[in-house]
Amino acid sequence: SATLDAAESSTDFLSSWQDGPKNKIMDWVKSTTTEGSTDFIPEKDRIAVFDNDGTLWSEQPYYFQLAFAIDEVKRLAPENPDWEKDPSLNALIKGDMAGFMAGGEKALLKAVAVTHSEMTVDEFDARVKNWIKTATHPKTGKHYNEMIFQPMLELLQYLRANGFKTFIVSGGGIDFMRAWTEEAYGIPPYQVVGSQFGLSYVDTTASPELIKIPELVFLDDKGEKPVGIYRNIGKRPVFAGGNSDGDYQMLQYTSTGDGARFGLIVHHTDSVREVAYDRESHIGQLNKGLDDAAKYNWLIVDMAKDWKVIYPYELK
Amino acid sequence: SATLDAAESSTDFLSSWQDGPKNKIMDWVKSTTTEGSTDFIPEKDRIAVFDNDGTLWSEQPYYFQLAFAIDEVKRLAPENPDWEKDPSLNALIKGDMAGFMAGGEKALLKAVAVTHSEMTVDEFDARVKNWIKTATHPKTGKHYNEMIFQPMLELLQYLRANGFKTFIVSGGGIDFMRAWTEEAYGIPPYQVVGSQFGLSYVDTTASPELIKIPELVFLDDKGEKPVGIYRNIGKRPVFAGGNSDGDYQMLQYTSTGDGARFGLIVHHTDSVREVAYDRESHIGQLNKGLDDAAKYNWLIVDMAKDWKVIYPYELK
Ligand SMILES: [Ca+2]
Ligand SMILES: [Ca+2]
Repeated sequence: SATLDAAESSTDFLSSWQDGPKNKIMDWVKSTTTEGSTDFIPEKDRIAVFDNDGTLWSEQPYYFQLAFAIDEVKRLAPENPDWEKDPSLNALIKGDMAGFMAGGEKALLKAVAVTHSEMTVDEFDARVKNWIKTATHPKTGKHYNEMIFQPMLELLQYLRANGFKTFIVSGGGIDFMRAWTEEAYGIPPYQVVGSQFGLSYVDTTASPELIKIPELVFLDDKGEKPVGIYRNIGKRPVFAGGNSDGDYQMLQYTSTGDGARFGLIVHHTDSVREVAYDRESHIGQLNKGLDDAAKYNWLIVDMAKDWKVIYPYELK
Repeated sequence: SATLDAAESSTDFLSSWQDGPKNKIMDWVKSTTTEGSTDFIPEKDRIAVFDNDGTLWSEQPYYFQLAFAIDEVKRLAPENPDWEKDPSLNALIKGDMAGFMAGGEKALLKAVAVTHSEMTVDEFDARVKNWIKTATHPKTGKHYNEMIFQPMLELLQYLRANGFKTFIVSGGGIDFMRAWTEEAYGIPPYQVVGSQFGLSYVDTTASPELIKIPELVFLDDKGEKPVGIYRNIGKRPVFAGGNSDGDYQMLQYTSTGDGARFGLIVHHTDSVREVAYDRESHIGQLNKGLDDAAKYNWLIVDMAKDWKVIYPYELK
């Protein structure tokens, strides 16, 4: 059993959290993991789900997966001369970011499609692993996997130490995340739920492979998040964490189940240490979540006030 | 870690297996879990996948999930008078099994659709749990979850004791299996991969629910088994067990990966204790698997010769 013994339970897992939210989380975990408590949840039902972008790591000025796509288009352009015929890809290759962005969603999807398909899953995995090791964020200069949230890391570890299984349920690409989430968060590939491209099993060679095909078969966002949860996990979660209205249904599905439930929303309030945005943001927009937090008893985490540190590297 | 310590490793996990296949399995497990061995597999990569029907439990005279559908049609017929208008459902309701079967695949799918959709996932789960507790097999008179294979149960436990994660990858319905596989095999819902009906998140009530919709969105068979594996697990397995040509690609995908691999085919050779069938069977047909077993080094398990007992109740 992964449950704490007496000695371990005295560890201060949530040391980057201020006392207010920290005590709310710890009180709930204590009441749901103490046998005989009316709120007790058996270990097999301790399913905790977390959005990724903006919840476990940063997402500004654009989703980090888009940064990967952009970097990959530039890296691979010399091998793909036909990409220059596409106006938005061409803008990107020439370093004209505004011209690329002017292409809107269609341009973004094009950049994602050409960098996320027509290759084996192993090749894609290797590319993401290489990128995450080498690429850096335009503003902080840090590697992207250094821009994960220290308090959320502590929360994941704390929940696991108390017998919870931690899952990612993200609108991000499932294969993109799986390449680095085990190392970054301690969450193995089979506990990652995300958006999916098509896959095709090709056994015409001595070494059969799965090929990624350029067709989005599942967009794990909004009302599809509960669907993705049921498809890949098969149980209604008891703990959910998100940051935007894309997580509303996941939080709602979690919080309206029977018995003790915990919902948490990371509110990006820190313009100094991170980025402040919510109701008007083009990324990670948060309206309904703020409006209905009281109704569902969701904990709104004020990043500026509730977190002593944001990123792990601040501790070094 | 779930890895064995010295004392536990002396336990005879595979006591229902004859020495030949037992030693092959144990030698492989020993070589892949001994640090320093050239075949060593890190614990995080010890993914083992198993087909269900005909591999972990029996599947004759028809898939047990079809038995569930048939029983449910009969049970629910009084509440659904319109079912009598459908010739094949009407035959079933009247007890005319031959008449029902004459409707072919279309009749089967109809019986499955009306018993597997248009309800919440929780309601479906409760129905399967009730059925598995009460229904009995037409030939043995045993509950269906008593007709699981004792040697395979031992194999699952043995692999888990050696740090492997055990997954089901079956053509059967994912929600049908999840209702009872945790208790029967020790395999939790999030380690079950299977065929899937559509799901819809309905939040128009105070208690939002997932509703099963009558549309098959994923058939987890043949070349789709490696696809299902990658979608739900995200890693190439190192151990695979199956019984029919529907498992061929799963076994092939497993066995052609780099490093040490183990493939196993349950060959139904025992006409006395179970049912003998292979190349000519309408259920669980096994041709290519027998033809190519040597090529891929798959272990053909001869049920009549290699298993001392078939079902757990024989031990009582
Ligand atoms: Ca988000
Ligand atoms: Ca089978």
